[in-house]
Amino acid sequence: MKILVSNDDGVHAPGLEALYEALSTLGEVTVVAPDRNLSGASSSLTLTNPLRLHKHKNGFYSVNGTPTDCVHLAINQLMKTQPDIVVAGVNHGANLGDDTFYSGTVSAAAEGRHLGLPAVAMSLVSRNENNLKSAARVARDVVENIIKNPIPSDQILNVNVPDLPYEDIAGFEVTRLGRRHKAEMMQKQQDPWGRDIYWYGELGRELDAGEGTDFYAISLNKVSITPLKIDMTAYDSLETVANWVKQLEI
Amino acid sequence: MKILVSNDDGVHAPGLEALYEALSTLGEVTVVAPDRNLSGASSSLTLTNPLRLHKHKNGFYSVNGTPTDCVHLAINQLMKTQPDIVVAGVNHGANLGDDTFYSGTVSAAAEGRHLGLPAVAMSLVSRNENNLKSAARVARDVVENIIKNPIPSDQILNVNVPDLPYEDIAGFEVTRLGRRHKAEMMQKQQDPWGRDIYWYGELGRELDAGEGTDFYAISLNKVSITPLKIDMTAYDSLETVANWVKQLEI
Amino acid sequence: MKILVSNDDGVHAPGLEALYEALSTLGEVTVVAPDRNLSGASSSLTLTNPLRLHKHKNGFYSVNGTPTDCVHLAINQLMKTQPDIVVAGVNHGANLGDDTFYSGTVSAAAEGRHLGLPAVAMSLVSRNENNLKSAARVARDVVENIIKNPIPSDQILNVNVPDLPYEDIAGFEVTRLGRRHKAEMMQKQQDPWGRDIYWYGELGRELDAGEGTDFYAISLNKVSITPLKIDMTAYDSLETVANWVKQLEI
Amino acid sequence: MKILVSNDDGVHAPGLEALYEALSTLGEVTVVAPDRNLSGASSSLTLTNPLRLHKHKNGFYSVNGTPTDCVHLAINQLMKTQPDIVVAGVNHGANLGDDTFYSGTVSAAAEGRHLGLPAVAMSLVSRNENNLKSAARVARDVVENIIKNPIPSDQILNVNVPDLPYEDIAGFEVTRLGRRHKAEMMQKQQDPWGRDIYWYGELGRELDAGEGTDFYAISLNKVSITPLKIDMTAYDSLETVANWVKQLEI
Repeated sequence: MKILVSNDDGVHAPGLEALYEALSTLGEVTVVAPDRNLSGASSSLTLTNPLRLHKHKNGFYSVNGTPTDCVHLAINQLMKTQPDIVVAGVNHGANLGDDTFYSGTVSAAAEGRHLGLPAVAMSLVSRNENNLKSAARVARDVVENIIKNPIPSDQILNVNVPDLPYEDIAGFEVTRLGRRHKAEMMQKQQDPWGRDIYWYGELGRELDAGEGTDFYAISLNKVSITPLKIDMTAYDSLETVANWVKQLEI
Repeated sequence: MKILVSNDDGVHAPGLEALYEALSTLGEVTVVAPDRNLSGASSSLTLTNPLRLHKHKNGFYSVNGTPTDCVHLAINQLMKTQPDIVVAGVNHGANLGDDTFYSGTVSAAAEGRHLGLPAVAMSLVSRNENNLKSAARVARDVVENIIKNPIPSDQILNVNVPDLPYEDIAGFEVTRLGRRHKAEMMQKQQDPWGRDIYWYGELGRELDAGEGTDFYAISLNKVSITPLKIDMTAYDSLETVANWVKQLEI
Repeated sequence: MKILVSNDDGVHAPGLEALYEALSTLGEVTVVAPDRNLSGASSSLTLTNPLRLHKHKNGFYSVNGTPTDCVHLAINQLMKTQPDIVVAGVNHGANLGDDTFYSGTVSAAAEGRHLGLPAVAMSLVSRNENNLKSAARVARDVVENIIKNPIPSDQILNVNVPDLPYEDIAGFEVTRLGRRHKAEMMQKQQDPWGRDIYWYGELGRELDAGEGTDFYAISLNKVSITPLKIDMTAYDSLETVANWVKQLEI
Repeated sequence: MKILVSNDDGVHAPGLEALYEALSTLGEVTVVAPDRNLSGASSSLTLTNPLRLHKHKNGFYSVNGTPTDCVHLAINQLMKTQPDIVVAGVNHGANLGDDTFYSGTVSAAAEGRHLGLPAVAMSLVSRNENNLKSAARVARDVVENIIKNPIPSDQILNVNVPDLPYEDIAGFEVTRLGRRHKAEMMQKQQDPWGRDIYWYGELGRELDAGEGTDFYAISLNKVSITPLKIDMTAYDSLETVANWVKQLEI
């Protein structure tokens, strides 16, 4: 089996290495990741500048671009034969609820799906590195299962692992995305020359973290697995909006 | 009425100005856009560096960041009272089918929605600038209607306008996203020093452009309006995946 | 006469516009400047990515690159006939003593010199914008004199103007570069996620600001004009170092 | 002895590692280099964004900034006690004649000098990596000699090593900077979307490569050592320019 691994924390992130090691037991793993930390990259593409590949001593490749660029370049140019699956992560920090929208990890998986491959996004609900191996081992479990039992071809799995040793994880739960409160106000500061600058602040607290959500599963020490659709069309609303549109005319 | 306008083509793009002019007839318009062309920015956030606001002579603001950053910073910091609606565009070029996934225009609208506001993404299906005014006038029509008849609060409207004078547009159509074939292979070139570089190539041709899709509406010279959901959870699959997960255990 | 104007504060800086207006009375002025604030750019070149030109409504061009890129691109590609002189600025802030080493303004002038043209770097000793017109008018005086009475062809002039109305300036002084004390310690802060970041701090205070230096001239309310050599060879030391090298052998 | 090593080719460059290994025989070596290839960075500073330090597995540090940033941050923040000398390189490619003006390698050394330390810039006249070890060994020879016999405190040494095995190098020569012809025209291309882009082309051919120049020494298979002054004042011209200035008045 051929596995493509990427992330958004960059080629030097310990979570990438943990994932590489866990998946290497399943097949041949190619790693292509951004040369810098690209957390929050979403599905951004590098269109105005060209991309470059650099091979590191440990065999990992880095790209001067985004997670999506990495997956696209790997599949289009670097790999002679297509991988069987794309796995992104292990992200240092949760990708729960609205976070998924901005996550480069989720987007790397989504790009794999766009290019026709099963794909999984793996995140550890912690920035501390102790349990990256738990998450990597969960990744292996999930990948093994996907290979045996394929998932629908228009979806990816967004997997969040609680910050625990593998043995202490309380099982798996299929979830929907919860919602956060709006993020805190941006932080306004001044740079050393007295000019205003703005930083994103802390993530919002959980707003919808009730039963069935990814937040809830994590609170029970379970692995949260959310199937995400790539097609954003609001099918349920097509009729409503069709009525609404009747009031428009050229 | 207060309207926030942004885009992904940057603060100097003619489509931004066309949109500003058309919407100024409806209320007070604040423009906050990236200082550079950020096409393909998706919902990326600038997390490792701080953001800065610059006010231009024409009253527009620019930000050294992404479309999402612009909307976030405008609503969180710049505007004393919240806008009533966020409108992104007019994008120079279509945002149809899979394009929406990578589009900074669609993402600027989505960020408005995340922050609790109705939002519309406006694109002209052409890179040539002749009919930007048509698209801007359609934007005004759509915004007027939303204010009178609100749309569901978990959705945005993705509006694509055919490359025609306003009078020649054949009406409005509510659509689902179509699909493109995979993009052409990336273009491999060499820089002047003989090192390999890679560029994204042309967009893929249409794969699913049948009746009901946004591609199809455009081919009939109609405005395509696709309601997009912000929540990517694949609700239809929750049960299937729940069965699938039963085969996993810690 | 054809004049090329650039700067390092970026295409939207008021000092650029003031310089454009003052020099337009002498001939045809082409403005090509960075699209962003590139203070501190020194003579850096953009080698790994391509450059792009954008023409603004006011006729100015911007480049997604450095001051040196701007001058190089203007002379090599944009201008059909070579300019007679390159003028950089008016910089918002002094370029005195060691500052010159890091200054994008000085480097834009130096690039003009490398490409065979007389060149002047203009700075106002203030970040406040009141007296940009004084500095621009001094620029016109200097350029007029250079055209009539050429300066040595391996040098540029580094001109600093005190923060005063034109009429209150106490004359011109030819100077050597002074020296600053080492800059203050870099400022260590934490970003909103608790990670260490470092900012350059305030400039060092003056160390050598005695008679004959540029600092001294400014303290007397005079325009400081320092001729700068482009060739950094330490000719006076060639013999000393030749003796020193005798102790080396392969 | 404490040695600070940096470069402009980035933290992953083989020339950096070769230099680290050769100098480790002399003392304690700290390596702080840009996280990306910053060739052509000159003395540029990162002023609008903060810097971050990352420690790699091999003990090297990288910075999301320029060579000058690296040296400044290392000396100001990272190193508890000041180094005795700063050595930059081994650059992959020559820094001869006018190249020195744009070179990040030379600038890293110059920043060491600005901060009060002896400093050397090391370059191998070749992009091929075979003889990086020759250059690194020459670096060790030069550093040993500087420690024993200090060089003038307002200068750095710019050292270029011919592309040869150490034993085949024909000795050392103290030189002045030669000059190149102007660089070839920039290369105008189109990106995949048909928009004009511009790349720097090949370096100019040698214009002044006569006896005494760095080009000439290299052509004789010798190591070229050019002492460079940090102060760019054209002392020889102060009188001439003083006469010239008499024609100016406010």
